[in-house]
Amino acid sequence: MGMKATIVMPADAPAPKVANTRASGAEVVLYDRVKDSREEIGLGIAKKTGATVVPPYDHLWILTGQGTAGLEIVEQAKAAGVTLDAVAAPCSGGGLSTGIALAVKGLSPSTSVHAGEPAGFDDLARSLATGTKQKNDKLSGSICDALLAPTPGDVTFPLALKLLGPGLVVTDEEVLDAMETAFREYKLVVEPGGAVALAAALAGKLPVKGRAVAVVCSGGNVDHATFIRALSRRST
Amino acid sequence: MGMKATIVMPADAPAPKVANTRASGAEVVLYDRVKDSREEIGLGIAKKTGATVVPPYDHLWILTGQGTAGLEIVEQAKAAGVTLDAVAAPCSGGGLSTGIALAVKGLSPSTSVHAGEPAGFDDLARSLATGTKQKNDKLSGSICDALLAPTPGDVTFPLALKLLGPGLVVTDEEVLDAMETAFREYKLVVEPGGAVALAAALAGKLPVKGRAVAVVCSGGNVDHATFIRALSRRST
Repeated sequence: MGMKATIVMPADAPAPKVANTRASGAEVVLYDRVKDSREEIGLGIAKKTGATVVPPYDHLWILTGQGTAGLEIVEQAKAAGVTLDAVAAPCSGGGLSTGIALAVKGLSPSTSVHAGEPAGFDDLARSLATGTKQKNDKLSGSICDALLAPTPGDVTFPLALKLLGPGLVVTDEEVLDAMETAFREYKLVVEPGGAVALAAALAGKLPVKGRAVAVVCSGGNVDHATFIRALSRRST
Repeated sequence: MGMKATIVMPADAPAPKVANTRASGAEVVLYDRVKDSREEIGLGIAKKTGATVVPPYDHLWILTGQGTAGLEIVEQAKAAGVTLDAVAAPCSGGGLSTGIALAVKGLSPSTSVHAGEPAGFDDLARSLATGTKQKNDKLSGSICDALLAPTPGDVTFPLALKLLGPGLVVTDEEVLDAMETAFREYKLVVEPGGAVALAAALAGKLPVKGRAVAVVCSGGNVDHATFIRALSRRST
């Protein structure tokens, strides 16, 4: 759109994500996941420059925009004559997964929708199980660098409670295996956080046998070393 | 289509190509690139079993089928309001590249179409330059395992002479760099032979500055070790 953009990003974001964002013409402001509040930093920049804040997930426009992926899934399944039993997507703050659920449950109420999270950062899974917002103990420490939001959003959580089935929680090892499968079978480069829903399906945590299941792989910002680590788990 | 299939494949084909073909239900018959004739092996199997021979490139149906990629390119460029200056595609026997040329030159005569080949296996580039069918000196020795056909096809060459611009010849190093770029920028897994046209564009052998150019990346049958080799050429 030819507009100036400032992107607030954790200092431990993968190098290609930072480099690609800068190469696209944006200014990148790095913050410390543990000490800083990205929301405050973003608001500060907006106040100073008159920019509009675009939050990563906790806003109805973001959530419904991300939900168009769910629209496409249901439309493509319908075109193939398939009624989906389940849809799963990666989840950090819940924008993508509840957005998808909004679309999928609206068009195909019998389909269950699930959010995938990394082990140790399963705040939404625990929040769904208890009915109240839970927090993660840690703010970093998973290879799924994009899925570390500490707690469900204020906008996303009430929708998640209403629309989502039980959460899917996967280990870093299961995520690496899913990245290797995406490379080998689908010829796709998927970043760790983007592969959690696929990992849940491959690890048997999301049952797929005899069922029609759609899984969202979202994001390819993975550094070379992490991708090589995933490929090295299988020799051929 | 639920039909039995026997696939005749060089013994040095990448392991995932052989494994995926078997996993899809086909019988794989391996042959020696130097000593055996795959055409004779295929005809022998067809004679014994009554199977239909599907040649890899030297047949009008194969060529026009592969040419649908050219149709899609021109239609998508048109939808984007773009007239293409050039299209490039990988080339072994010439089925994909002349098929694409047939479609592109028919719909967009001002667009030049180029076939990419690995250095040392540039039989088509030399045949186009001399106007007569040339042969490669070697039958193996490039990482582009899918692009080692020894000479242009009898069906493809007359069409190539009429429709193709000068050939593009790239080194294995340029191919590995293109695979790394496809990983980093496009999040795609491309096999060596599938990346030659992209390599020509990135290496400046196919001019792209200020021009509208479409490049075909075709095939993702790459073993883990070769992909890791490509990624290891760049550290971030």
